[in-house]
Amino acid sequence: MEHDKSGVSVGVVEKKVFTFAEPPNEMCMESGSGLGPLTLAYETYGNLNHEKSNAILILHALSGDSHVAGYYSEDDPRPGWWDIMVGPGKGIDTNKYFVVCSNILGGCMGSTGPGSINPKTGKPFGLDFPVVTIGDMVTAQKALMDQLGIKRILSVVGGSIGGLQVLEWCLRYPEMVVSAIPLATTPKHSALTIAFNEVARQAIMADPNWNKGDYYNGAKPDLGLAVARMIGHITYLSDESMRHKFGRRLQDRSDFSFNFDADFQVESYLRYQGSKFVERFDANSFLYITKAADYFDLTRRYDSGSLVKAFSRAMAKFLVVSFTSDWLYPTYQSKAMVKAMKKNGLDISFCEIEADWGHDAFLLPNERLTDIVKGFLERVYNETES
Amino acid sequence: MEHDKSGVSVGVVEKKVFTFAEPPNEMCMESGSGLGPLTLAYETYGNLNHEKSNAILILHALSGDSHVAGYYSEDDPRPGWWDIMVGPGKGIDTNKYFVVCSNILGGCMGSTGPGSINPKTGKPFGLDFPVVTIGDMVTAQKALMDQLGIKRILSVVGGSIGGLQVLEWCLRYPEMVVSAIPLATTPKHSALTIAFNEVARQAIMADPNWNKGDYYNGAKPDLGLAVARMIGHITYLSDESMRHKFGRRLQDRSDFSFNFDADFQVESYLRYQGSKFVERFDANSFLYITKAADYFDLTRRYDSGSLVKAFSRAMAKFLVVSFTSDWLYPTYQSKAMVKAMKKNGLDISFCEIEADWGHDAFLLPNERLTDIVKGFLERVYNETES
Repeated sequence: MEHDKSGVSVGVVEKKVFTFAEPPNEMCMESGSGLGPLTLAYETYGNLNHEKSNAILILHALSGDSHVAGYYSEDDPRPGWWDIMVGPGKGIDTNKYFVVCSNILGGCMGSTGPGSINPKTGKPFGLDFPVVTIGDMVTAQKALMDQLGIKRILSVVGGSIGGLQVLEWCLRYPEMVVSAIPLATTPKHSALTIAFNEVARQAIMADPNWNKGDYYNGAKPDLGLAVARMIGHITYLSDESMRHKFGRRLQDRSDFSFNFDADFQVESYLRYQGSKFVERFDANSFLYITKAADYFDLTRRYDSGSLVKAFSRAMAKFLVVSFTSDWLYPTYQSKAMVKAMKKNGLDISFCEIEADWGHDAFLLPNERLTDIVKGFLERVYNETES
Repeated sequence: MEHDKSGVSVGVVEKKVFTFAEPPNEMCMESGSGLGPLTLAYETYGNLNHEKSNAILILHALSGDSHVAGYYSEDDPRPGWWDIMVGPGKGIDTNKYFVVCSNILGGCMGSTGPGSINPKTGKPFGLDFPVVTIGDMVTAQKALMDQLGIKRILSVVGGSIGGLQVLEWCLRYPEMVVSAIPLATTPKHSALTIAFNEVARQAIMADPNWNKGDYYNGAKPDLGLAVARMIGHITYLSDESMRHKFGRRLQDRSDFSFNFDADFQVESYLRYQGSKFVERFDANSFLYITKAADYFDLTRRYDSGSLVKAFSRAMAKFLVVSFTSDWLYPTYQSKAMVKAMKKNGLDISFCEIEADWGHDAFLLPNERLTDIVKGFLERVYNETES
C-alpha cells in the first residue's frame, strides 16, 4: 500500500522523551521493586484543544513502539505501524484529535528497559531490570499524561498487548478514561497463550549468547530471538490465512530440495520474519514484555475471580472488537469481557469482525474496523462536548 | 491408569530386528539416493493364522516406536505407547489378530536413521543420511511384510504421521491392503503444520551443539530439541484442553515469582516434556521425520492436484477418524479425504469423535474410538473369511 506523505499521512513526526521518577524519587513497581529515573519515548500527532478534551492515547503491542503514524523524515521509506488508522481524516483523525503514543516500559525503542543503563552500575540492566507488569506500564503512561496536562483521555486504544493496557487503564484510573477501544485482546491470557510465550522465552534462553541476559557487550542471542519471533508469527496468523497466503507453494523451485533448506514459501517467510526482527528488537525486552502479558489478569488484580466485580470499577464507554479467525485472543474471551461490562450497566458496543487474517487482522487495512472506530470516537467526542 | 500385566496386556514382548537391502543391493529412495543395508526394529503380538489373513500393521507417529503394547520385562514400569488399544480383548484384539509394529526408517529406536553408523565412513550418518519420505518408510515396511510372508494385510492402522503412512500404503501397495484406519491425519500438511515443524527444526538447528548434525561424539543439542518438543506439545493439545488441564494455575506458589522461573503449571509441564524427550530422542531424527511429513502430499505424488484421482488407486475399506478439537489435522482435512474416497465408490466409514484433548485424543483412552475400531476390524475380518 502506498501512503501519500503530503496528504493522508500525518507527515514528518519527531520522537520525544519524557523522564520522571528522578532521584530521590523512584517508581514503585507491582513486584515491590523501585525504579528510577525512567524515560518514556513518545510521539504526538495533531493538536491538543484548549479544553484538553480531545486526547487519544494509543497503546502498542509486543513489537510496536511510539511511532504509530507518519515518517521520521522526508525520505523515510516506511510510515509508523498504524498509519492506515491514524492520520488526517482517518479512523483516528489527527485533524480532530490529539494522539499520543509512547513506547512501553520494558521496551527497547527509547523507553527504559532491560537494555538501558542501570544507574547503579553504569552497565545495562539485563536481568537486574525488575519484572514489569501491564500495571507498571500504565503507571508510567499516567505520568506522561500528567506531564502533558491531560486529566481526561477521550479514548485509550490498543490491540493485543496494547489492549491489555487499555483494560488496565480503565480499572486503574477509571476517572481519567472517557472511552476505551480494546481490540483483539483478553482480560487474561489463556494457558495456550502462556504456553506459546513460554516456549518463545525458552528459545531465547536456550541460546548460549543470551548468557543469562548479559550480552550487551558481545554477540546477541539472535538465533534464539529469531525462533521466538517465528513462533509469534504463527500465532498471529491462522490456519485459513496461511492456507491463502502460502498453501504448499514451493520457494523458487519446482521440486523438493531433499535437504533442510526452506522448501516451502511459509518456511522462507518465517525465516525472513525471524532474521528481520533481530535487527530491531532486544531479546530481553521480549522476555519482559511477554512475561508482563502472561501475568496480566484483571480478575486476579481487581477482584479475586470475578470479572463482573473487576469491571465494577470501570466508568468508560467501551468499543470491544474481536476477529473471527483470531485464535490467540479468540472472540469468546472478548465476549466474557463484554458480558461482565454489561452486568455493570456500562455503555458498551461490541463487534466481532469477519476476517481471515487471524490475530494480525487488527493491524491490517479493514474498512469495517476503520468505520466503527471513527463512528465510536465521534459519538463519544460529541457526547463529551455537549 | 493401571494396566494389569497378567490379564489385559499382551505381557512381555521382545524387540526384533530385520535387516535387508544388504550389499550389493540398496533401497532406492524417493530422493534418488540409495541406502543399504537397512535395519528395522519391530515387534509382533498374537499369532499369524494359517491363512496369513489376520495381520494388522500399526504405524507409529513422530515420537513412537515399535513398542506398541506390553512390557519388555516383568518389572518394566510402563507398557507400550498404545497398550490401551492393543492387547487381548482390546480394540485391536491380539487373541484374534497378529499385530506388527516397526520403528520407522529415519527413526532412532532401533531402525536405521541419521544416528546409525554409515557403513561407508564407520561414523554416524548425521546429515549424510538421505532425506527420507513417508513413501520410503512404507517401502521399508513392505520389505518387512515380505519377510514375514504376509501378502495381504487385514488392516493398516495409525494416527498422525502414522496416518500418513496408512494413506501411503493404500496407494503404493493397494492390492496388499484389505482395510485401513487413518486416525487424526491428513492427505497433506497444511501451511500451519509445516510452519510449526519448521520452527521446531529451526530451534534444533539454532543450538550450537547441533553442529550441522554432527554431534554424536559430543554434547547433544538438548536445549534446541527441548524447545522443538515444547512447540510440538502445544500443537498436540488444544485451547480447551489446556484450559481444563492447566488454566492459569500457579506452580507450587501462591504468587508470581517476578523472575523468569516457571510460574504457571503449563510452563512447568512444557519444560518437563522438553527435558524428558531429549533423554530418549535423537534431534536429527526429529528433523528427518518432520521433513518427511511436510513433504507428504498424496495429490502431488499420485496425481497432480486431484485427491479424487489419487484415491482411484485405492482398494481398501476405510475407517477414517478425526477429533473435534484437533487443530493440527483438523476434521475438514479428513472430510476432504472422505469425499475423494466416496467419489471413487470406496467402502468408507467416517467418524468425527467429540473430544476435548486436541490432536492427542487419538492416543488417549476413548471408549467410542475403541468400539468403532473393534467393530470395523471384526466386519472386515468376517468379510475376508467368508
